[in-house]
Amino acid sequence: MTASNSQRPICIFCEIIAERLPASIAYRDQDWLVLMDIHPITEAHALIIPTRHCAHLSDIDAAGRQALFDLAAATMAAQESAGFSIGGANLLLNDGIAANQHIPHLHLHCIPRKNGDLLAFARRMVLRTVGIFGFRVSLGRLDRIAEKLAPLIKVRAI
Amino acid sequence: MTASNSQRPICIFCEIIAERLPASIAYRDQDWLVLMDIHPITEAHALIIPTRHCAHLSDIDAAGRQALFDLAAATMAAQESAGFSIGGANLLLNDGIAANQHIPHLHLHCIPRKNGDLLAFARRMVLRTVGIFGFRVSLGRLDRIAEKLAPLIKVRAI
Repeated sequence: MTASNSQRPICIFCEIIAERLPASIAYRDQDWLVLMDIHPITEAHALIIPTRHCAHLSDIDAAGRQALFDLAAATMAAQESAGFSIGGANLLLNDGIAANQHIPHLHLHCIPRKNGDLLAFARRMVLRTVGIFGFRVSLGRLDRIAEKLAPLIKVRAI
Repeated sequence: MTASNSQRPICIFCEIIAERLPASIAYRDQDWLVLMDIHPITEAHALIIPTRHCAHLSDIDAAGRQALFDLAAATMAAQESAGFSIGGANLLLNDGIAANQHIPHLHLHCIPRKNGDLLAFARRMVLRTVGIFGFRVSLGRLDRIAEKLAPLIKVRAI
């Protein structure tokens, strides 16, 4: 089905999954993708998305939730191993338009943190929350981060 | 062991679990508690905490993660059923001091949202992020919210 005869508007994440749009991918399996956020709140800010289009956490079942949060734990561990987080990380799910979900395809934010980054973090978080995303980071730079994370995302080992 | 001869400082959440401090509880089982945040970002803002003290998501195993996020899904559904969220909710885990975890006992925020609450949400979120918690909501008022949520939190049914 092409976009022109689909009832659903084009979904950026579905386009990335179908490799019709570029993205920096740190992990991929049949059901899930970890990609680098193109407007990162902090360096190595990652998004976990299902390969099957759905909008909300309530659209996936218990097995899906387990896979999602196992992958989140593995991604957080990888971010820490690679030195992108020191002393903390935020997991954030904006679920629904009222909750500032700007792309209607389920995505879980894994945001590495370092001591002393609070002001920059808060400023970028507020701007994103109100829909101001700022400058994109180049795909080349995000690719290098994804390449660092990829061998460290060990879902089975967690 | 009493607090005076424990090596660990008193943990507010452990005190609540041991019923030495009051809280408004919406759900309790052997391993988990859902309580109402005393400085809510929005009405019916809930926290999910393990009954066994640990600080980080990495301190619990895959079965623990599954129980935690199953309970999160059930809590979000209950908040929606009770009318506290309309059109969205945020799940937020501040994991580690660098990530603004103010109480070193793992807690997952379930924050109901409604269209139009963005400015109030953003203001309270920023104040909490920088450690300004503002006025507490009375336990009586939180108890009434917990009583509304309690019969609607159906972990098994999700």
